[in-house]
Amino acid sequence: MRYIVGIDLGGTNIVAGCVAEDGSALHGAHTEPTRAEEGSDAVVQRIIALAKRAVDQTRRAVSGATVLGIGIGAPGPMNTRSGIVLLTPNLGWVNMPLRQRVQDGVGLPAALDNDANCAVLGEWWRGAARNTQIAIGMTIGTGIGGGIIIDGRLFHGASDIAGEIGHMTIDANGRRCKCGNYGCLEAYASGPAIALRAVEAIESGHQTILRELVGGDLARITAQTVYEAARRGDDLANEVVRDTAGFLGAGVANLVNIFNPEVVVVCGGVTHAGERLFDPLRREVARRAFKPAVQVCRILPGELTGMAGVYGAARAFQEQVEKGIVRL
Amino acid sequence: MRYIVGIDLGGTNIVAGCVAEDGSALHGAHTEPTRAEEGSDAVVQRIIALAKRAVDQTRRAVSGATVLGIGIGAPGPMNTRSGIVLLTPNLGWVNMPLRQRVQDGVGLPAALDNDANCAVLGEWWRGAARNTQIAIGMTIGTGIGGGIIIDGRLFHGASDIAGEIGHMTIDANGRRCKCGNYGCLEAYASGPAIALRAVEAIESGHQTILRELVGGDLARITAQTVYEAARRGDDLANEVVRDTAGFLGAGVANLVNIFNPEVVVVCGGVTHAGERLFDPLRREVARRAFKPAVQVCRILPGELTGMAGVYGAARAFQEQVEKGIVRL
Repeated sequence: MRYIVGIDLGGTNIVAGCVAEDGSALHGAHTEPTRAEEGSDAVVQRIIALAKRAVDQTRRAVSGATVLGIGIGAPGPMNTRSGIVLLTPNLGWVNMPLRQRVQDGVGLPAALDNDANCAVLGEWWRGAARNTQIAIGMTIGTGIGGGIIIDGRLFHGASDIAGEIGHMTIDANGRRCKCGNYGCLEAYASGPAIALRAVEAIESGHQTILRELVGGDLARITAQTVYEAARRGDDLANEVVRDTAGFLGAGVANLVNIFNPEVVVVCGGVTHAGERLFDPLRREVARRAFKPAVQVCRILPGELTGMAGVYGAARAFQEQVEKGIVRL
Repeated sequence: MRYIVGIDLGGTNIVAGCVAEDGSALHGAHTEPTRAEEGSDAVVQRIIALAKRAVDQTRRAVSGATVLGIGIGAPGPMNTRSGIVLLTPNLGWVNMPLRQRVQDGVGLPAALDNDANCAVLGEWWRGAARNTQIAIGMTIGTGIGGGIIIDGRLFHGASDIAGEIGHMTIDANGRRCKCGNYGCLEAYASGPAIALRAVEAIESGHQTILRELVGGDLARITAQTVYEAARRGDDLANEVVRDTAGFLGAGVANLVNIFNPEVVVVCGGVTHAGERLFDPLRREVARRAFKPAVQVCRILPGELTGMAGVYGAARAFQEQVEKGIVRL
């Protein structure tokens, strides 16, 4: 069997693993903190070490295993053809030739793609969106990213920016977003935005167990705390989750009307909210989007929790080989 | 030279013409009122007569001209593979086998595609979006339609619905749209929505020459009246145009962030507003969308006024021949 290393580089953690070329197996998976504050050289060395470790463990586990190369999913605008990360505010990188550095460090060909693209591609290859040709995915975490699969391939747009779903305006006069715009989906439904809406509701005097869950320190409320309180039946938390479904529903309905996809996959911590979120989300999309588009579209939580980006980075490597961007 | 008949079927008019297969020439172009109230048979006969007339005139004008077939752009959700229009509220049709009926009536193979798709495809083939691979178009009239060109081909989605750009939510709690949803782009920036916003402003007591332009009958105000008043320097009309640019800007910015296209073409009567609209529109998109996506994207008015749909229907015929949906 032939394998590809998948690397998911995030602002908090780096996840790596070695994926069989048909996606059927994953070996040598490890996670390490990114520690961006140690500088770019340290982070690149950490990526190289994780990749080597995944390669070694795979060769030990599977006799005769061949590793073809390395797919890297990284944040920030990038040039997938040159393999350069243009800018990552989270890591403080500018014009970092990440593909070349990893390639040289490990001694295997490498491919670079966007982290959200990779997560969605992973879900398409081996997760919730498998066996489709047109799939849209969104990854909800600190921000909201997206990925677009058309004819079974990632769609990159004219300059590798396509899929910036989080900065879709859903309320032209709405909340200010970190990007400077107003009313972006991300300003309502990202993890921090969910926490912020909960805190605002508490501060306006509503009863809730959220206060106890964080020992009275409202700054410690996260989206996960909100889901936990909702699970325990807390009214305020359930209202925040329903509102989240409403905002996400407006965004997903736009994507359903625009792409008429077979599936929309929603990935990230938000999947922990389960049907409490997905049930009102589906109803909101059905209310807002065109019926003939709604009828053919499933709206699903991601299945490859924490590993979608690794699978997808490995698949992105294959795509770039097929396109001739990367040579074996 | 070989030719293809292009038909643009609208609720008000049918436009037909015979387009050279390289798009370099158009012969036998004619427009007739649709007169949907006379029933579907009458409309289909009118389409067949217009197509035959275009064929005859082309054969007379160009010795040795061969006509390969007929492309039809029609409103409403449809099945492009079976050639059936599923529903057209404007014409009152349900499950109309339009492709087969035109094919039988003219005696040439036919292809069916969506009218907005055809208009955008025409602009891509011979108009403002030529020489691009990724182009998004919107057609602004009674409603707002859209078309998506990826890798030089129309993108149809899973069930021929893709490109419903007019029903993108830009204000989740905004104006009610005819589709039943709230805050659709169409509810702000379609022709009737532009007129309605002008009337609302007049009724709230603002000074304007619009009243005189329609002889005091506010019901006669159309988007064109607003553009005319703006051209003459009317403050209220100019404000309505600027607001239109703001709403359209939110929608176009979403498309720029999602598709990262090379060009966005805006077609329809709205192009008569000229730079008075396009200048603030471009500024709004630059303010809202991601810089690296804005930098590579031109925002242009359509160039093929009134004939984009005819050119595009002819090109859609070629696409469907290439895809094997239509056989020569």
